[in-house]
Amino acid sequence: MLHRHGGDIYTYGKVYDFSANINFRGMPEPVRSAAVQAVDASVHYPDPEYRTLRRALAGREGIAQTDHMICGNGAAELMFALSAAYRPKNALLAAPSFFEYEQALASSGCAVRRFCLKKEDGFEITGQFLDAIDETTDCMILGNPNNPTGRTLSGKFLEELLRICRERGILLVMDESFFDFLSEEDRAGTFSCAERTAEYENLFVIKSFTKMYAMPGLRFGYGICGNKKLLEKMHTVMQPWNVSVPAAQAAQAAASETAFAEETAIQTRKNREALSGALLQAGYRVYPSSANFLLFEGPEDLQDFCLEHGFLIRDCSNFPGLARGFFRICVRSREENEKILNVLWRAKENG
Amino acid sequence: MLHRHGGDIYTYGKVYDFSANINFRGMPEPVRSAAVQAVDASVHYPDPEYRTLRRALAGREGIAQTDHMICGNGAAELMFALSAAYRPKNALLAAPSFFEYEQALASSGCAVRRFCLKKEDGFEITGQFLDAIDETTDCMILGNPNNPTGRTLSGKFLEELLRICRERGILLVMDESFFDFLSEEDRAGTFSCAERTAEYENLFVIKSFTKMYAMPGLRFGYGICGNKKLLEKMHTVMQPWNVSVPAAQAAQAAASETAFAEETAIQTRKNREALSGALLQAGYRVYPSSANFLLFEGPEDLQDFCLEHGFLIRDCSNFPGLARGFFRICVRSREENEKILNVLWRAKENG
Repeated sequence: MLHRHGGDIYTYGKVYDFSANINFRGMPEPVRSAAVQAVDASVHYPDPEYRTLRRALAGREGIAQTDHMICGNGAAELMFALSAAYRPKNALLAAPSFFEYEQALASSGCAVRRFCLKKEDGFEITGQFLDAIDETTDCMILGNPNNPTGRTLSGKFLEELLRICRERGILLVMDESFFDFLSEEDRAGTFSCAERTAEYENLFVIKSFTKMYAMPGLRFGYGICGNKKLLEKMHTVMQPWNVSVPAAQAAQAAASETAFAEETAIQTRKNREALSGALLQAGYRVYPSSANFLLFEGPEDLQDFCLEHGFLIRDCSNFPGLARGFFRICVRSREENEKILNVLWRAKENG
Repeated sequence: MLHRHGGDIYTYGKVYDFSANINFRGMPEPVRSAAVQAVDASVHYPDPEYRTLRRALAGREGIAQTDHMICGNGAAELMFALSAAYRPKNALLAAPSFFEYEQALASSGCAVRRFCLKKEDGFEITGQFLDAIDETTDCMILGNPNNPTGRTLSGKFLEELLRICRERGILLVMDESFFDFLSEEDRAGTFSCAERTAEYENLFVIKSFTKMYAMPGLRFGYGICGNKKLLEKMHTVMQPWNVSVPAAQAAQAAASETAFAEETAIQTRKNREALSGALLQAGYRVYPSSANFLLFEGPEDLQDFCLEHGFLIRDCSNFPGLARGFFRICVRSREENEKILNVLWRAKENG
């Protein structure tokens, strides 16, 4: 198969899934019930302009212009549509980063150059990445925080990046799918680019409700962009009714669930630090993360060992920029984290 | 906006919708409850290979090879993906036909030549269409039955078409989104190309559950194609999880609802003949249809007149190949049809 990702419970059967980075608190009840009620409304087509939904999303993001918002059948669809609409020729990506960036770019024939992040730097994206931009670069996609590392981009780096992209006319795609998982402390050194879209025409910010509201099966993500011509172009390469009625209604309900997101970020930070500390104690090399997942190194057969004990973790060896022995796990509840820690302790004892 | 279609109840508000060609019997209960139950399962990603679903679809179609099936977020997504993957250069379409054919082809830069169907022929697609194929033609998309006319393609025409496309290496896309609405009598002179996909490598058949199972808001359509390389190419231009879990579960339930489809086809034929006869009696020019909708001519302001009375009909003047004064209505229940007939009678009296 072409795509091999986390969360593939269909291949692995009944397991504790730590491989997908989904909010351990589950789908909030208002979101769930909006989706359930939407099934009856699904005898009609969705609104091809998603007017009510785009207003709710703009409200959540504090964006004055509703027409800067675009809805996607998951964030992934927007990456493919953006690539097909903009048709960049030479993209610069950080490695490791989310696999779909490359897939989306390749789908419209874009050449991809990878800047390999350094293990010694804890895979932080630093100023050296900016030095790798050359005269052929016309597109960059970066995650803030980055997946699978969970590292944020510093405010200083972001300002410099925005400036360079404006000066050189480079399309900058900021994937903030996990940004809402950052607690206040995690956000201290960084910022969301969403509010900069009115100012920077070549900036496209991607957000996702998939992870925060535990709705990956409903499929919903959105984009924020001040370049209306680009958004119009994207609409010409997508079908008119790309977001289902249940996804649209669930997203509309989720848009006002900001307290849920904030509480999630607080709990995530607490659980992440505990999980990370325990992994270190067990002798694993753990990389710094501000998100709801952790990248770490362990014995090469760790995924199989965990599977034998009923736990699915993400083997990261197929991420360009990583090698065998790299793994990612989602930060879940304290109880669940303790369960997988038991298995990970045993793996170390056995290894 | 880019796309203007039937079924846009978001612009027109609370109306009796005769503009979208949705099964008047509504969503079958097993389909509805599968979608509702799927909301809880939506905390997981869908299976990116949609294995169980593709097996169910292959079973329904009597196709031995599960890997000839491809799932879409509505049939429309498959048209865009097919166009992006195959990248035809010169397509020949019949006019009038479904607007999205052109949109999908244009999205990947394909030039479209329209063969205008004749009013005098009742917009039947005849051998003359075949004469219009030239040496540049590398793609054709035809509806069987065609939308907005409801005309089927004759068996003789289809055999000739398949032969020519094989000989000249032309990609033939058969849109059978409305095929299941044909009763046994309606099918007498035509056939489904689904069973020919193993035989003809350059044939791609599109089917939709949207209309038959009244689930346009859930978004589900599928393709059948014997050319595995083409299907693989399509997967590279689409995100991995394009069909939501509720849509996939609903479709899985719908796949075995064949008795519901057969009964629908019988009732549709009866109601269509009654509706068509009444429209003729009222003085409208009605075109022959085998599907669950009727194309007819009326006063140019008929859509506004109907809206004033709470009924939404499809103004077909924006279909290439049609002019002002052409309208399409869905065949619904006898009671509903009588309601709209009252309005259409009055429109004639006033005009």
